[in-house]
Amino acid sequence: MDLVYTGKTKNVYKLEDGNYLLKFKDDVTGTDGVFDPGANTVGLSIEGAGRAGLSLTKYFFEIINAKGIPTHYLSADIENATMTVKPATVFGQGLEVICRYRAVGSFLRRYGKYAQDGQELDAFVEVTLKDDDREDPPITKDALAMLNILSESEYEILKDLTKKIGNIVKETLAEKGIELYDIKFEFGRVGADNHIALIDEISGGNMRAFKNGEYIEPLVLEKLILA
Amino acid sequence: MDLVYTGKTKNVYKLEDGNYLLKFKDDVTGTDGVFDPGANTVGLSIEGAGRAGLSLTKYFFEIINAKGIPTHYLSADIENATMTVKPATVFGQGLEVICRYRAVGSFLRRYGKYAQDGQELDAFVEVTLKDDDREDPPITKDALAMLNILSESEYEILKDLTKKIGNIVKETLAEKGIELYDIKFEFGRVGADNHIALIDEISGGNMRAFKNGEYIEPLVLEKLILA
Repeated sequence: MDLVYTGKTKNVYKLEDGNYLLKFKDDVTGTDGVFDPGANTVGLSIEGAGRAGLSLTKYFFEIINAKGIPTHYLSADIENATMTVKPATVFGQGLEVICRYRAVGSFLRRYGKYAQDGQELDAFVEVTLKDDDREDPPITKDALAMLNILSESEYEILKDLTKKIGNIVKETLAEKGIELYDIKFEFGRVGADNHIALIDEISGGNMRAFKNGEYIEPLVLEKLILA
Repeated sequence: MDLVYTGKTKNVYKLEDGNYLLKFKDDVTGTDGVFDPGANTVGLSIEGAGRAGLSLTKYFFEIINAKGIPTHYLSADIENATMTVKPATVFGQGLEVICRYRAVGSFLRRYGKYAQDGQELDAFVEVTLKDDDREDPPITKDALAMLNILSESEYEILKDLTKKIGNIVKETLAEKGIELYDIKFEFGRVGADNHIALIDEISGGNMRAFKNGEYIEPLVLEKLILA
């Protein structure tokens, strides 16, 4: 089993059968020891964060697979904090796809002239390039097509899948009295037909969630959802 | 005649007949005394810059009007550096629409992971919000519609007009051996039917142009084009 990629929050190994193993780390993104799902740096390390993130990822990916929405997920081993996935190729050098239900974070920093802090948004989808050096710039459908990162028809599929998956997470959280503000996903091309599938993870570190007006830290969120 | 707006490079007066008078100043945008069409600050003041900018604007707006593309332009008085225009309302609190033929400037700063410096672009259209405090953030068609700034159908009209007008300017420059790298426009709603029309100006300060590989300053560019 070869280590093929060392990420900020997980490592990727290639398996002999052609599939991949994701090893979830205890590191979470943030700045100066404070968790921030939009940050590009590892802010802190929390014992058990990897297993907790994987538990939530397994939970959501199994729901999403069962609804017929394609993902790269095959199985999870919570004890060892590993997940087995199908091979996938990312778009360009990687995109982040954000689904927003409240105007906070980078959305508000960009569009604060037109949006109120915390204003409701109806599963609004944005795409950013994964590019730490350029602070993950937002990118339009036209620019994605022009730069040969994502075709126009793929963009529409991506947007539609993002809203569907975002809404599944939002409804799951709502059943526990938790409100989803925003969530980020990664997608890739999977299978011989290169269909678009959800990849990576869905853990507390990918979303902003609030309960009774209070922000919920990823580890607490994972416990509340899986309780 | 009432002063209704004081801009970085021009002032706006309301006329008694309902039209408006734009008074072109000798100030141009830039930073630390260096011209930069993308800057939000007045970088320097150049004697005659206002009349030169107006001369080029008159030249292009008359060509564009003659081609049946709607603008707010009515007439120009070069001596007094004033232009008479129809009333227009901007989208939201103002947009900038950029048409790109080479990957330079903010495009390259954002998408340099995928584009080479100076790479050819085929009249690529981008929209940014006029918002000095937030450094004129780029915005997508979806976000413009969601924030009630521009409808989806208006966006398509805006994009189509931008390419048409950009290509008119590009071809005009090419006849003088000058290459247009990028140009920014402003549009607004004009007339009882609120049709989308080109507003503001088309001067050297709105574009980046090169001749024999050398960048051409706005005042030189205006002389070369009108020669």
